[in-house]
Amino acid sequence: MELTLAIKNGLILTMDEENRVIENGLVGVLDDKIVYVGEEKDFSANEIIDAKEGIILPGLINAHTHVPMSLFKGLAEDIPLKKWLEEYIFPIEKRLNPELVYTGSLLSCAEMIMSGTTTFCDMYFFEDEVAKAAKKAGMRCLLSEGLFDFPSPNYGHIEKGYEYTEWFIEKWREDPLINVAVGPHTPYTCSEAVLKKAKEISEKYRVPIIIHLAETKYEIDQIKQKHGKSPVEYLKEIGLICPRLIAAHCVHLSKKDMQLIKEGDVKVVHNAECNMKLASGISPVPDMIEMGICVAIGTDGSASNNNLDLFQEMDTVAKLHKISKMDPSVMDAVSVVKMATINGAKALGMEDIIGSIEVGKKADIIILDTNTAHMTPLYNPFYGIVYSATGSDVTHSIIDGKVVMKERKLLTVDLDSIIKEAKSWAAQIKKWLS
Amino acid sequence: MELTLAIKNGLILTMDEENRVIENGLVGVLDDKIVYVGEEKDFSANEIIDAKEGIILPGLINAHTHVPMSLFKGLAEDIPLKKWLEEYIFPIEKRLNPELVYTGSLLSCAEMIMSGTTTFCDMYFFEDEVAKAAKKAGMRCLLSEGLFDFPSPNYGHIEKGYEYTEWFIEKWREDPLINVAVGPHTPYTCSEAVLKKAKEISEKYRVPIIIHLAETKYEIDQIKQKHGKSPVEYLKEIGLICPRLIAAHCVHLSKKDMQLIKEGDVKVVHNAECNMKLASGISPVPDMIEMGICVAIGTDGSASNNNLDLFQEMDTVAKLHKISKMDPSVMDAVSVVKMATINGAKALGMEDIIGSIEVGKKADIIILDTNTAHMTPLYNPFYGIVYSATGSDVTHSIIDGKVVMKERKLLTVDLDSIIKEAKSWAAQIKKWLS
Repeated sequence: MELTLAIKNGLILTMDEENRVIENGLVGVLDDKIVYVGEEKDFSANEIIDAKEGIILPGLINAHTHVPMSLFKGLAEDIPLKKWLEEYIFPIEKRLNPELVYTGSLLSCAEMIMSGTTTFCDMYFFEDEVAKAAKKAGMRCLLSEGLFDFPSPNYGHIEKGYEYTEWFIEKWREDPLINVAVGPHTPYTCSEAVLKKAKEISEKYRVPIIIHLAETKYEIDQIKQKHGKSPVEYLKEIGLICPRLIAAHCVHLSKKDMQLIKEGDVKVVHNAECNMKLASGISPVPDMIEMGICVAIGTDGSASNNNLDLFQEMDTVAKLHKISKMDPSVMDAVSVVKMATINGAKALGMEDIIGSIEVGKKADIIILDTNTAHMTPLYNPFYGIVYSATGSDVTHSIIDGKVVMKERKLLTVDLDSIIKEAKSWAAQIKKWLS
Repeated sequence: MELTLAIKNGLILTMDEENRVIENGLVGVLDDKIVYVGEEKDFSANEIIDAKEGIILPGLINAHTHVPMSLFKGLAEDIPLKKWLEEYIFPIEKRLNPELVYTGSLLSCAEMIMSGTTTFCDMYFFEDEVAKAAKKAGMRCLLSEGLFDFPSPNYGHIEKGYEYTEWFIEKWREDPLINVAVGPHTPYTCSEAVLKKAKEISEKYRVPIIIHLAETKYEIDQIKQKHGKSPVEYLKEIGLICPRLIAAHCVHLSKKDMQLIKEGDVKVVHNAECNMKLASGISPVPDMIEMGICVAIGTDGSASNNNLDLFQEMDTVAKLHKISKMDPSVMDAVSVVKMATINGAKALGMEDIIGSIEVGKKADIIILDTNTAHMTPLYNPFYGIVYSATGSDVTHSIIDGKVVMKERKLLTVDLDSIIKEAKSWAAQIKKWLS
């Protein structure tokens, strides 16, 4: 067997249909693809990574982020959302520029790679800069320029937003890592015309639609007042409830809403830590999973989380729903790991190429160190991943067959220099707000 | 200024009464004590630690643990408490022995030191082995042998439990690091006689009493049925509500219970992650803090958490109460850091010697690396600590003036060998259960 890359001596969690776990496993990679998954056998490879009895699992998928916002994390906390937005975020976003967005995105890419995320799904402004940062870092992503009725710091008027989106889709169409979607912001910040146009662009280019949906009570009240129905019912009415819709949050849902989401095969992204921190509410995730709805996991922007560590997010997801339902058997560990891997892939329309370690899929793989005090003993790798691990346990990250982090060292990004640039932007942001 | 140890070039969070934060700070240590806290000035020292612009803060205090149980973490998860206890924990505890307890404790000490905890408060069996492990690791602790009506794997009959406790108190009386308390398990596993005898021993030796209190609905129902009142009211009646009582969990409390806790100056230990994971309920912590009750933080045993990382616990504490109260301003970051430092010291009756970085206190200090992607930018150190950091950001740990971890390397424990021993015990435990 001739390989470009071999990963050996680890416990492989394939996350395939049968949830196969392979002890003393070997993953063989040829160029960007996985060509062998199984027990160790003879091979020759250009590069060999020894997993040192750690866990080999699919790279995690952060299905909802705003990566440039890493530069705003910790600016102000423990205050009501309105005050945070009006006194901190909006004044900064008025002065937003491509350089800031690029730096924030590259900082987030560094953080994501170092904590085991290999794919992310984003919405923000100047999103082409996010694409450039992801490309530099070697990350896979699905990106969208936020569209709404107000003037945007990037494109200005919404008509230019449509143009930007189409240009953005076409620009990256052939790229192996960068994927582009349409990004209508929310049902209450977008007019019906914007929402319908977003759907139209999505159909024209066969790309996903990313939206925030039913996040807060405020949104529910707004939409009910204006349209006499729930946000989900409203989107159904105007044709947006469809398999290409990736709906973040979905906190406040009626039974009927969930039924519409199920029938429409809408993909849901759960942001547990952000919903807790902003006191938005608790999404009925166990109910949706029981109904067969595809639910993935996102961190949301790190300004409202405040990190991009999906291992911590998995832990919180498991615990939040146990306490919410007063039942310790709710949200078992395997289901939670699925949410952060194969469900994330399905949500992003990428289940044919990522989300599990299977022959024929792209080689997006991470290795978790288990030779630590907090991961010892390891009776069951799923329990270890969800309840004991954090992102800092990740030692290696491979994306599209390329090693982007090796023994905790980033190979695609100069970490010290991006930290320095981020600090310089932070000083600038403090000046803007003073 | 002549020092044995100097820590320079960091942002000092003193956690003193005025909550002073000192930029470019210096902490001077002479033997076991802090002799200088302030801006950098001339000094000579045997050892100098450069904090590299990181955060210098008091070592964290884990106010409720069962450290030997690290060997049971991840054995079984996502099942009801009764099944977990009856099918896994009780059968193992029948075969408990000093060697297993020592290994599990040393493994936990390694994990705690590496994640920034310098003091812990424990209850289990063969607790003298926990003392030996803490002594070996160089950790400060308050330990108690669990007392109850059933036969104990250590002392057998309860009468021997009293003897063991008194012997244990006397054995470590003069030790600078090891402190011993009395440990009546719960109001429903201890008869009134056991509870009263525990109080008597506590008064005789002027040591704290550690108890689990009002953790589950089951407990409330049991006590109500037997005594016609709440567990707190029952303890009040028999004389246990007092300043020396350290009450873990306190999940299910009435207004009257909280009033009794306040009047009695009982110390409460909040175990947010464990209460979520076991679906026990949500402790009314914000209400207790508003009433002026001293609330500290514990992880509980790592078999029900599943790690001993107080940074993750702080994050969860902040978020859990925001969502529970549907108010993002509840449980602000400074209050949460206080819970894990100075409140922990008060809870353990050690506020004169630890819990803050102040001249005259013992040198229990940790340093947090902030030159990482997830800690950049750092607009406010409290937000960084609570919302962005994890225990793996800790680079140095100093306990009683002695450096026990330096640049993430444990100096008191051979990590590889303790991991190896723990794995060997895990194999044995699996055999016992098969």
